[in-house]
Amino acid sequence: MMEKTKKAVILLSGGLDSATTLAIATDAGFDCYALSFGYHQRHCIELKSAEAVAKSIGVCEHKIIEIDLAAFGGSALTDEKIAVPLDNPSLDSGPIPITYVPARNTIFLSYGLAFAEVTGSYDIFIGVNATDYSGYPDCRAEYIAAFETLANLATAAAVENRGKFAIHTPIIALSKAEIIKKGVSLGVDYSLTHSCYNPDSAGLACGHCDSCRLRLRGFAQAGLKDPVKYAENL
Amino acid sequence: MMEKTKKAVILLSGGLDSATTLAIATDAGFDCYALSFGYHQRHCIELKSAEAVAKSIGVCEHKIIEIDLAAFGGSALTDEKIAVPLDNPSLDSGPIPITYVPARNTIFLSYGLAFAEVTGSYDIFIGVNATDYSGYPDCRAEYIAAFETLANLATAAAVENRGKFAIHTPIIALSKAEIIKKGVSLGVDYSLTHSCYNPDSAGLACGHCDSCRLRLRGFAQAGLKDPVKYAENL
Repeated sequence: MMEKTKKAVILLSGGLDSATTLAIATDAGFDCYALSFGYHQRHCIELKSAEAVAKSIGVCEHKIIEIDLAAFGGSALTDEKIAVPLDNPSLDSGPIPITYVPARNTIFLSYGLAFAEVTGSYDIFIGVNATDYSGYPDCRAEYIAAFETLANLATAAAVENRGKFAIHTPIIALSKAEIIKKGVSLGVDYSLTHSCYNPDSAGLACGHCDSCRLRLRGFAQAGLKDPVKYAENL
Repeated sequence: MMEKTKKAVILLSGGLDSATTLAIATDAGFDCYALSFGYHQRHCIELKSAEAVAKSIGVCEHKIIEIDLAAFGGSALTDEKIAVPLDNPSLDSGPIPITYVPARNTIFLSYGLAFAEVTGSYDIFIGVNATDYSGYPDCRAEYIAAFETLANLATAAAVENRGKFAIHTPIIALSKAEIIKKGVSLGVDYSLTHSCYNPDSAGLACGHCDSCRLRLRGFAQAGLKDPVKYAENL
């Protein structure tokens, strides 16, 4: 008799958080279907990282979807006319940052739900994190809970009682240092990941955008050296 | 002083239901931002209809987003290997049809939410209909209510109390005949719309897929002649 496997869809950006999330899902015994999105001018670097992470940790399938969020604009991550903030003084507080992409996680999770339904997965993992970065509305637990409710009304799989969808956010309450320590304990190779919003033409991280600064602080607080290369010594 | 306008995003497929929905939103005084998606092999015909409808009724902007739902498959509308059912005996009942596209309306509404946030709209109109076709899980009122809850947690606009999103489904409880009569009363030119899942190479409707049959029955029950051309006389 074949052993019944548990399948999960993992949203994989190529960054530190989603790489750790994939390692956690794999460690929990799931056969993982990774889903990545090309949606902004830096997507080549990120997708290369996502592919390297998926290969390193091991997945059943890695699907990359090109989506045109630049058609809407409204964010420093999708609109070339809006600059990525550097050395932002309000790293831990303040208004919702200009790197917020309107409805991004809702769009990502919607595609994740489609992939889950087609692959017969009922578990969807997303590496949102509310502790280090509370500025994004679509990284909060109440948002994720609302999406889970929606998923169980939206799909044929749920309506026909073939299964109940769960949205897993295993790192939502961890600090960046705790995420890194967890990943290291699971063997994640963070040299493969990419976090920078503002890399140079060679793909080197800037060290000054919010994402780089949170990452560098996390490694420092974990007592570890960040293995990725930066454009300058930091 | 400039008069304050009400803006709305309308999901516009080029079909009969969404054309009527756009006419209803316009009649209610909204400045409309139409959003269409190219997502399957028949999208050229549908998008041409959507453009004609948007032009005929009048919108502030019509944005067309190409999305790759064929990457997932799992539906007769996105997977060329799955045939569209013709002369299906279970038109009003039975299991969820094979033309169901996994998580489609969730993906569409997510993009609609992004467009709404960027344009400063808090009203999103979608032409779902639960009476004639109860087979699709993501056309039901409880699904729409769950998406509205999600929208008000997902976005910067909602978190910063700039407004509250509402998802409008003005034709959800109408029969196809009632939708047609409503549209005719608002001046909708149904000759511009396209409903067929299975058009011939010239774009003529087949008359035998579920979508054609519901449309033809609706016109018959409304006592009107369908102005679109069919591949054969029906």
